Amino acid sequence: MTSLLDTINSPADLRQLPRAQLRQLADELRDYVLHSVSNTGGHLSSNLGTVELTVALHYVFNTPEDRLVWDVGHQTYAHKILTGRRERMASLRQFGGLSGFPRRDESPYDTFGTAHSSTSISAALGMALAARQLGQERNAVAIIGDGAMSAGMAFEAMNNAGVYDDARMLVVLNDNDMSISPPVGALNRYLAQLMSGRFYASAKNVGKRVLGVAPPLLELAKRIESHAKGLVVPATLFENFGFNYIGPIDGHDLDSLIPTLENIKQLMLDGDGPQFLHVVTKKGQGYKLAEADPVAYHGPGKFDPAMGLQKSSVPSKQTFTQVFGQWLCDMAVQDKRLVAITPAMREGSGMVEFHKRFPERYHDVGIAEQHAVTFAAGMACEGLKPVLAIYSTFLQRGYDQLIHDVALQNLPVVFALDRAGLVGADGATHAGAYDIAFLRCVPNMSIACPADENECRKLLTSAFEQDHPVAVRYPRGAGAGVAPDAGLTSLPFAKGEIRREGAGIAILAFGTLLYPALEAAEKLGCTVVNMRWAKPLDIELLLQVAKTHQGLVTLEEGSVMGGAGSAVSEALQAAAISMPVLHLGLKDEFTEHGEPAKLLALQGLDAAGIEASIRARFPG
Amino acid sequence: MTSLLDTINSPADLRQLPRAQLRQLADELRDYVLHSVSNTGGHLSSNLGTVELTVALHYVFNTPEDRLVWDVGHQTYAHKILTGRRERMASLRQFGGLSGFPRRDESPYDTFGTAHSSTSISAALGMALAARQLGQERNAVAIIGDGAMSAGMAFEAMNNAGVYDDARMLVVLNDNDMSISPPVGALNRYLAQLMSGRFYASAKNVGKRVLGVAPPLLELAKRIESHAKGLVVPATLFENFGFNYIGPIDGHDLDSLIPTLENIKQLMLDGDGPQFLHVVTKKGQGYKLAEADPVAYHGPGKFDPAMGLQKSSVPSKQTFTQVFGQWLCDMAVQDKRLVAITPAMREGSGMVEFHKRFPERYHDVGIAEQHAVTFAAGMACEGLKPVLAIYSTFLQRGYDQLIHDVALQNLPVVFALDRAGLVGADGATHAGAYDIAFLRCVPNMSIACPADENECRKLLTSAFEQDHPVAVRYPRGAGAGVAPDAGLTSLPFAKGEIRREGAGIAILAFGTLLYPALEAAEKLGCTVVNMRWAKPLDIELLLQVAKTHQGLVTLEEGSVMGGAGSAVSEALQAAAISMPVLHLGLKDEFTEHGEPAKLLALQGLDAAGIEASIRARFPG
Repeated sequence: MTSLLDTINSPADLRQLPRAQLRQLADELRDYVLHSVSNTGGHLSSNLGTVELTVALHYVFNTPEDRLVWDVGHQTYAHKILTGRRERMASLRQFGGLSGFPRRDESPYDTFGTAHSSTSISAALGMALAARQLGQERNAVAIIGDGAMSAGMAFEAMNNAGVYDDARMLVVLNDNDMSISPPVGALNRYLAQLMSGRFYASAKNVGKRVLGVAPPLLELAKRIESHAKGLVVPATLFENFGFNYIGPIDGHDLDSLIPTLENIKQLMLDGDGPQFLHVVTKKGQGYKLAEADPVAYHGPGKFDPAMGLQKSSVPSKQTFTQVFGQWLCDMAVQDKRLVAITPAMREGSGMVEFHKRFPERYHDVGIAEQHAVTFAAGMACEGLKPVLAIYSTFLQRGYDQLIHDVALQNLPVVFALDRAGLVGADGATHAGAYDIAFLRCVPNMSIACPADENECRKLLTSAFEQDHPVAVRYPRGAGAGVAPDAGLTSLPFAKGEIRREGAGIAILAFGTLLYPALEAAEKLGCTVVNMRWAKPLDIELLLQVAKTHQGLVTLEEGSVMGGAGSAVSEALQAAAISMPVLHLGLKDEFTEHGEPAKLLALQGLDAAGIEASIRARFPG
Repeated sequence: MTSLLDTINSPADLRQLPRAQLRQLADELRDYVLHSVSNTGGHLSSNLGTVELTVALHYVFNTPEDRLVWDVGHQTYAHKILTGRRERMASLRQFGGLSGFPRRDESPYDTFGTAHSSTSISAALGMALAARQLGQERNAVAIIGDGAMSAGMAFEAMNNAGVYDDARMLVVLNDNDMSISPPVGALNRYLAQLMSGRFYASAKNVGKRVLGVAPPLLELAKRIESHAKGLVVPATLFENFGFNYIGPIDGHDLDSLIPTLENIKQLMLDGDGPQFLHVVTKKGQGYKLAEADPVAYHGPGKFDPAMGLQKSSVPSKQTFTQVFGQWLCDMAVQDKRLVAITPAMREGSGMVEFHKRFPERYHDVGIAEQHAVTFAAGMACEGLKPVLAIYSTFLQRGYDQLIHDVALQNLPVVFALDRAGLVGADGATHAGAYDIAFLRCVPNMSIACPADENECRKLLTSAFEQDHPVAVRYPRGAGAGVAPDAGLTSLPFAKGEIRREGAGIAILAFGTLLYPALEAAEKLGCTVVNMRWAKPLDIELLLQVAKTHQGLVTLEEGSVMGGAGSAVSEALQAAAISMPVLHLGLKDEFTEHGEPAKLLALQGLDAAGIEASIRARFPG
């Protein structure tokens, strides 16, 4: 039996369908998403939640002429399927396959690449004003979740958009009451209020409360009530920002969505200025298991849809994230000053257990990296010892605050940088490739690069012992598998170690690439140094090694440009030593998505690649 | 005659005064601020506007036990005068003297260093929650302007603070309807609404409108009115965020300020959660000339208070800012795709003329660096050519967006980075020391470093011609004084030039330090290369120079760590060339405020210092 979905190869096909058929299409689409993700892994809950919204947007708007900008973008699987990429869904998030996010080079329907949250309103506003300037008749639509809406950047964009009375733009708030971690923040409370209709209720009660003492006037009170709906209902927060607010409406009901979007499209055409549609959806909609546990089904691996996620019988290797989570709890027991902060990444950062055990010392500040960093600084001023768990790529959002509020005041904040280096399936948007370079130039900052799980725990302790800011960077997933010691012993500050004595060449490894370096060294007979700290460098050790070898090789899972290897070259020159140094690390290019080991090999950062590069640079 | 102010050496002294004397104290304080700033230069309008607020806060709160966090912090002169630094005001913003901002190492009353905007709520919340965790009875107060309030970071903090029902914190919104540039954005409109009492008015009218048809019921309508004030007045935006909103009140009226603050202090003590006080002040208050033109008196140099600012009879040297402003207008005439964006820095970035001539292509997005960058990206997607004028130090706020939205998508956005390098009186918070390092590691980015005014204009044109992102960095103030050519000719992309042929040593200069390098080279007889581009490097030229010299010196007004010199070392090693390289640039430390030439000399970056460093490294 040919399905309806099989006939849809572009939104133009979709727009040929009678409205009565859209329900069937949405059902088939949901089924396709579910089976596709169960085959490849990927984001599930969010994609199940946006099926109808995707259908409705492409049905009502003239895509790609009208621009859809999907915030975060991991909810675009239905969008991809409807825009000519149905067959390629089997390649999702694999090397050479479809990206898990919108990408401008993948499809003209992907009008703006997204992945980090809260960029969509800014981009859509830019597009809407560009259309105005170029005299083009088109609409720009940003689709943003309630979690992403709480980030400052979204407010900056709202604040700016609200004054362009002629911008043809629409913000669709996809309110599913959940970012990756459970919702936090005042905005979430506020949205819940809007949804519960409490505003309407309180307006209604005005008449009754005022007139309650005078029963005969109840009829009047009722009249006031009915007028009050139109007159007294307070402007929503979004109207305060200059948007025309519509909603909330049911985001799974095509019979609400489509007429509402058609009306809004007309308002945009009429020059009514920025529009705001509040849509309520359910993550995991239509798949009972995901509805019941949207967090578990946020980003599952492969699974059987009939069975759901199964506990693996093979115990998986301990991840760095888990090592951090355990250390955090252990250190919290030992030191009452410890306080832990996450910008909406409780699960991803391994803080579920800490949250449970130390709720008063746990702060999920929402998707708010800028605030998170300065909030930590404020706490450090008062004698607490904040640990901010943040992905390397998201620290880019708090860079100014790290410089201006933490480093300049030399405050003891520990930055636990997860996902440093390549991240695999998420691709270039999430790569933690730049942290050594962008942190190293900041005075007062220190940067530790543990080589394995055990060092990670110890270096976190070392970082925590300092009276100044320290970042500890560790990669996604598991490492060499060196089980952490139980205690809370530290490693010496800014000191490395020689791991293998060899001759001629010395590899200076920063972080987990120490292990492939040791492998390569077996073939090469060279020395291997575990540098451990990208800043401050262990200059003493460096000079000692430099004097006893003919050439050095620096190695890091981070950008060569400005990275730890660059620090080595600077230090050698500062010591007036000129000698050959080969810098190995990530190239000056954005890395594709794919399997991490493969990506590292492509960059020449596996044992074979390291060996080959060294032989090429130091023949004989 | 001994003044009252002379008797106040700490807030404790202030708190001994009877309330009736505070008016006199405030008047004396205002006078002191005016005369002090007219002697030293500094921020004036904002400080005149916060005199009464400062007196009231220190009078009501138990500083420094209670924490005052001043957002931006350039309005803290009265605070400094009242907290034991009166005598030192003559040294303001001078080397070794008082900072123009709060600094933790300057006074225990400066509880948090500020300068970049919108950090105060985050810091104060951190302090309030630290007090909670440590069981300390203290209040934390953030004082933030309406301009700073529009930045995303402030909203992130509000969103987070609103859920801590037991936080003893107060946000004072100092609403003077003006950031440095005129106010923009929906929030400003909204605050104007609040102030005009429109909300009260509309609530009042409910009764009349509903009951208008029934004259005998007017008495009832009045009763509804009086109740409506309490019942129907819509929640303000700030209440939506979970704050208890109070105001607006007159920020120059001590008889409003003090009782209101006392009440709020009691609410905080009673555990009523986060408080929000809306205070209305006037920039320049009490000095007619500043009231009339608060922009001109925002940050004046020295002047005679009786005469006001005078037009200088000596024509001042053209600044890089002016060169940029002129180029922007000229290029806008030539290319209709040009669109210019500023995050609330119209004056500082030299865009007043552009705004006047091209209002439709000028976008002041407010203090919103994150949004500004992605907004530019959105426009670039549609075929416009955005020029984002932003201080180097503020680009730190848009770093993630630069990587994720601009560079990753390889969009042609020109970043005009003013205030690159040391900035003088504003000090470490504003130093543009890190941009080469943090931009260089980003794939697809290019970085131009003009050596003088003429090159600045030409390199802006070169940047604009590219089909990928380019930053052009130039320092504060004037340069060597090379008048720009009138046309719009460009310099070749990624190409430098040999400026002086010498022997033995070659200085590779990036940017305006080319001129002291040329001076030093006269003494040293060495070669000088004007590299012009920090990325991509002119590798061909570099290798040619490397082969014909015994040693190289890299020179930049930016951090040595990870900077352009570091790029040179990387490139040499990549070409398997080992040779002595001396890296000159900014040291790995935060630079004090003071006169720029002096600061450069202290870093050894004047001609004499450069010469001395080269002689030390390459004797003979």
